Amino acid sequence: MHFTSEQRLDGDVLEREFTLGEVPGILWTPEPASAPEPAPLILICPPPLGLSRIYPRLAARARHYAAEYGFASATIELPGSGDRPRWPAVEQARAELRRVMEAGGPVTGEIVDALVLPLVDRSVPEWRAVLDALLAVPGIGGPVGYEGGIISIGVRLAAVEPRIAAAGLFAGSFVPAAIVEEARRVTIPLHVLLQWDDEAGHRQASLELFDAFGSREKTLHANMGGHTGVPQYEIDAGARFFARHLR
Amino acid sequence: MHFTSEQRLDGDVLEREFTLGEVPGILWTPEPASAPEPAPLILICPPPLGLSRIYPRLAARARHYAAEYGFASATIELPGSGDRPRWPAVEQARAELRRVMEAGGPVTGEIVDALVLPLVDRSVPEWRAVLDALLAVPGIGGPVGYEGGIISIGVRLAAVEPRIAAAGLFAGSFVPAAIVEEARRVTIPLHVLLQWDDEAGHRQASLELFDAFGSREKTLHANMGGHTGVPQYEIDAGARFFARHLR
Repeated sequence: MHFTSEQRLDGDVLEREFTLGEVPGILWTPEPASAPEPAPLILICPPPLGLSRIYPRLAARARHYAAEYGFASATIELPGSGDRPRWPAVEQARAELRRVMEAGGPVTGEIVDALVLPLVDRSVPEWRAVLDALLAVPGIGGPVGYEGGIISIGVRLAAVEPRIAAAGLFAGSFVPAAIVEEARRVTIPLHVLLQWDDEAGHRQASLELFDAFGSREKTLHANMGGHTGVPQYEIDAGARFFARHLR
Repeated sequence: MHFTSEQRLDGDVLEREFTLGEVPGILWTPEPASAPEPAPLILICPPPLGLSRIYPRLAARARHYAAEYGFASATIELPGSGDRPRWPAVEQARAELRRVMEAGGPVTGEIVDALVLPLVDRSVPEWRAVLDALLAVPGIGGPVGYEGGIISIGVRLAAVEPRIAAAGLFAGSFVPAAIVEEARRVTIPLHVLLQWDDEAGHRQASLELFDAFGSREKTLHANMGGHTGVPQYEIDAGARFFARHLR
């Protein structure tokens, strides 16, 4: 892991950009460390829009975690997003999804699989390699939480990566049937956000996914509004969920 | 309204039992008042089990509201419960429900109507009269929240009583079709709790009721477990909801 830049943000947070192989990312740590023991770490998976575009949102979240809870947090650029090389197969699947939705046609399982599974297959090993590297950074080493992004990535990671102790998931994207099956193997505490009027109409599928998770502790927070309308107070509700499980 | 007893609880809360006509109840107020302005008031509707039986739970909640948020709170004995005169029609409807459920038969709309509507019709005017009286007590007079109990009572009260500014509802009882229609007229902010594995299997009906509410701001919190398994952290999540809307 190579740190490529470093700056101190308001609120005593150190922001460091890094690369691990071809994967760029950002690490935020509370500075000075608020506790003598290593900080818990939240992996923040971004939507596939390019980190530079959503940086303000991610940085605000990371600052809140560091200042209020003493958590470190980190994000990476997803394959095919931002400055990473284009990924024609996934771009083609997105174009196909748009075409079908604009025509009012049904979004078939094949379309969803082609759209989501390659991204899951490639992102999850990247996240695991980044996690290895992050846990070797001095001051980081508490329990690990995961949140955000494309929910299927979170499901797979929670199912296969034993170092993830708790996950906050956003039910706002299509979920392949194979991922719903993987959800049954997830047993860590979960905090699932659902936008009741999400444009893509994932409500019923999201309720079924929530039901499928094998976790004994799982909470669903459903709020009114569309995909981008998650209320401000949910950010702290998610942080409090992590505070219960990572401290 | 006649106060019939008065005691100071740990945490500087004054607890007063009262009667209003034939309705007994309990009022909890922060003492000394934490702010110069009148305290917001939470109406806590109990389940129909008798106040003496659930007093510890109610008092713990009221103390939390007073100590952490400076809220006053009050509850009443529902008609037919506790020491109030027996109500044969409602007892008969409960016996009928038990009989049908034990036989594994369908719980029809007629059974639900007979069980719930008389209680709603009688409780809501009682709550409104008690609210009149409570708002005349010195030190009380902020915005009013409602929470708990049989969800249909909360729906009707939120639909007809303009002084209720926000409501926390527990989706854990049968809901008559007429009440779902009334829910469309409710426009205040709502915080709805649902136990995902509630013994009586209200999940689908509760999701439909949540969808029906006319409120622009409504949040559903679903947790694992049965009717009585609401996690401890939801108590404070409910309090924070009221803090956002009553302060």
